[in-house]
This record gives sequence, structure tokens and C-alpha cells, in this order.
Amino acid sequence: MRTPKTKKPRTSSKARVSKDKPVILITNDDGISAPGIRNLVESVKDLGHIYVVAPDKPQSGMGHAITIGEPLRLHKTHHFEGIDSYACSGTPVDCVKLAVDKVLHRKPDLCLSGINHGANHSINVIYSGTMSAAVEAAIEDIPSAGFSLLDYSIEADFTAARLYARLVVEKMMRTKLGRHTVLNVNIPAQKPELIRGLKICRQAYAKYNENYVQRNDPHGKHYYWLTGEFVNADKGKDTDVWALANNYVSVVPVQYDLTHYSYKEQLAKSWKL
Amino acid sequence: MRTPKTKKPRTSSKARVSKDKPVILITNDDGISAPGIRNLVESVKDLGHIYVVAPDKPQSGMGHAITIGEPLRLHKTHHFEGIDSYACSGTPVDCVKLAVDKVLHRKPDLCLSGINHGANHSINVIYSGTMSAAVEAAIEDIPSAGFSLLDYSIEADFTAARLYARLVVEKMMRTKLGRHTVLNVNIPAQKPELIRGLKICRQAYAKYNENYVQRNDPHGKHYYWLTGEFVNADKGKDTDVWALANNYVSVVPVQYDLTHYSYKEQLAKSWKL
Repeated sequence: MRTPKTKKPRTSSKARVSKDKPVILITNDDGISAPGIRNLVESVKDLGHIYVVAPDKPQSGMGHAITIGEPLRLHKTHHFEGIDSYACSGTPVDCVKLAVDKVLHRKPDLCLSGINHGANHSINVIYSGTMSAAVEAAIEDIPSAGFSLLDYSIEADFTAARLYARLVVEKMMRTKLGRHTVLNVNIPAQKPELIRGLKICRQAYAKYNENYVQRNDPHGKHYYWLTGEFVNADKGKDTDVWALANNYVSVVPVQYDLTHYSYKEQLAKSWKL
Repeated sequence: MRTPKTKKPRTSSKARVSKDKPVILITNDDGISAPGIRNLVESVKDLGHIYVVAPDKPQSGMGHAITIGEPLRLHKTHHFEGIDSYACSGTPVDCVKLAVDKVLHRKPDLCLSGINHGANHSINVIYSGTMSAAVEAAIEDIPSAGFSLLDYSIEADFTAARLYARLVVEKMMRTKLGRHTVLNVNIPAQKPELIRGLKICRQAYAKYNENYVQRNDPHGKHYYWLTGEFVNADKGKDTDVWALANNYVSVVPVQYDLTHYSYKEQLAKSWKL
């Protein structure tokens, strides 16, 4: 078994400056058994020293949740031949935190999350466990990317997603990346030859109109299932939704400073503060 | 010594267009039984028609998690005299979604979240269920604010937090607010007479260095408790952390467009896209 090096992490673009192959942490939110993470591992496994720490069960829609009130478990698994992999009882964000502290004992050079079964464009970025894991990595000074295929099916065809995930990772490894880099990469559910390439985009302004389905249990009490209609109110041609509808792979650089700077100035003036 | 003025509010913003008092939805992440939400309700209950929809159990650190794979329950409670209140089995974000669709059957004029037991400044905004509920409201076109007191104790003194929560709500009601307004309000654990007033801030650049505590169960297997050291790397005097350390109530306007615009331009150039 290979053990991670415990050298002191350098503070920038580590994948690029590593003398040997970079250490790459891979996680997801569909769980360690999902086809998506298997496809991601397969597509990049020769590009670095791969470690997988992923949820032991589906964790879709967990956003940036962390486990505070109960302890976490971590089990070594044999899901990926020749690759150290661990199933974690927590959320995708827990996986990143625990991987750094208790599996790698250092910061990896890169963190990859996915390939998610289903879209994480526009407002989905905020609900997505896949993307929150990537954001957590960037908070911890680890450049990262989340990958999502626009096909929810367990039997989705990951051919194009694999090609483009690898392309993005290769580009990241060749680029001087800020240590807080996060890329949100969505791939159309298309054959590779129909995809028109990468497009750097902004997050579309879109949301869901909720419509909970009410049912009654055998004791006559109500329960509610979340359903909703996705509404894209953004007609811009520079958005991820537009890019995907036009058969591009969308790449949105993501940040985690949530300050609304323009409104900050406006409010200070309005409230005379 | 400056204490908040309590002049009579006029109904404004979305609330402004209501013929009578605004409809105010209140939620939190510490659960419907927490002292914090009771204090928030008490501090603003004469300012609007109050509805409470809050988690039936603590949901701290749930971030923007939503419940997808199982249904939700909603139980009418009698926690607040004369106020319609419901306990929800889901996350804080679920509470907002379900409240709009199945309790209010309309969008409230304002959504308030808290008062949280413990700080939600700087990077905490991203892990916080309290703040994620407020952000969810803004996504749904409902101006909102999350309130947090810098005291984790169940027996915390909410005197100053109540005064300032009310002051902020009154100011919000007198201001023409954008429908996507979210304010992250943190209140020092101080007596009101020691607090120097409100300060509009940006989110400090700070994070946690994780240090999981490893223990063994009676069967000899490891489990891990999340602990960590908060590290503020931001020396700015315009941050929420600075304001709180200097006995101001910090107010950070929050956004949910996570696009990193400056890096977007840089990456497009670097990747020639």
C-alpha cells in the first residue's frame, strides 16, 4: 500500500509544480458505487496518484452540509483496482475534510468531484453535493473541479463526459491555477462528435418553482415529496444553460466569497452607515 | 452608548405593497424548540403576520442541503402563542420551500432565520443552515435576513440580539429592498450598551483547519469527530470578523451567483476560449 507523502504543502498550483505526478483526491455525491465516479477515476487515473474518498451512500442535494452532531466512519474499500479508496459515512464535504486530515495527511494537489449523474448548472451549484465538495477543496487551498453529466440514468453513457473530464484536468495541470480555483463543468448528454468543445460561462440566473406532492400514509397523515419545475429566466448567451443547450461543455469558475459587493455599497448609503 | 431606535416601522419593500402588515416567515437551524427562534419571534411579532416553519430537530451545519430521497413531514405545533407554527422533518432550506408551497400558499414579504446559537460570520455562511434558509428565500424572490448571536450556549443572553434583530427588520421594512436581498447579521455576545451599532461589512477570508479526533468503538473500530481551529487570514477592517471583534453588529449582504467573474475572464484568456 502506498502511503501519501507528508511533505509540507506548497501554496499554489501544486499539480503543476510537483516533480512527480500530482496527488489527486476524487470524491462525488452519488456514492462510491456510482458509475459516475468509476468513469472519472478511469478517465484520469494515469495523470496522478489517485485517492478516492467518497460517500458510502447517495448524498445528492446535500449542498455544503457537514456532520457535526455525530461521528464519521471511514472504511477502506476495493472498488477501484490498484487505487486506495475509502467509503465515508458523511457528506461530500465531510469526505474532503476527512480525506485531507486522516487519509492523505496532506493537501492533495487537485480535487475532482463527480462525474455527477445529472446537471449541476445554474442554481443547482448551490444544492449540489458534487460541487460543494469541490468548493470545500478550494476553501482548503486545493484547486478543484466538479463534473456533471446531463443524464440522471444509472446507465448513462459517460463516453463524452470521460473525454471532457480528462481534457479539463489536463488543461488544469498545464495552467497556473490559483489555489482557490473551482471549476463547475457540465457535459451535455451527447455523443462526443456532436459536442462543440468547452465554453467558459457564467452561472445562469435560474431556479425551481417548487410543487410538493402531498400523499397520505396508511394512518391518514400527510407527507410531502419535493418536485419542482426548473425555470431559466436568463436569456444570456454567456450562461452555462445556454452553452449546454447548444452542445458545449460549460465551465463556470466558482467562488465562495458570498459578499454582494455592489449591494453592500448601496445598503451602506441607504442606511447611512 | 447607542441603543437601537425602535421607531414605528412603516411597511415597505415587498412588505410595502401589502395593504396591512407584511407576512413574515421565520425559520432557523437549531430547531423549533431553540431559545434563539423564540427570541426572534418575540422581538418582531408585532411587525407583521408571523408564520413559523422550522426544523423539528437541530440542523446546524446543514448548509444548503435539501431532502430529495425521502418525503417530508410537517406538524402543526403550539410553541408560540397566537402564531401559526409548524415543525418540519427536513433541513432549513426544506422549511422555506415547504412553507411557501404548502403552509403560506404564497411568498411571504420577508423571511427571517435564527437567531442562531453561535457565529455565522466569514466562511461559516457556507456551512450554516440558518444562512442557507435565508439564501433560499432570496432565490425564491423573498428578501431575507439571518441572525446569529456569538454565543453557543443554550442559556445565552439574547437581549442585544433581540434589539438588533428588530432594528434590522425595521430598517429592512423602511428600505426599498431588492427581492434577492439576503443579509447576514451577526451580533456580539455583549450587553446592548457595549455594542457600537451596525456595520455593513464584507465576508472575512477565514477558514477552519480541521483536526478530527479519532476514537475507537467498543469493537475496536475507528470513528472520527469533527473539530477544527478557526483561522482568520484577513486583516481588513471592513470584514465581519473585524466588526464583531470591535463590538459592532456585522451586516453582510449575501449573493448566490457563485460565478467568479474575474477568474472567468482570466481563464478564457489562458485557455484561449
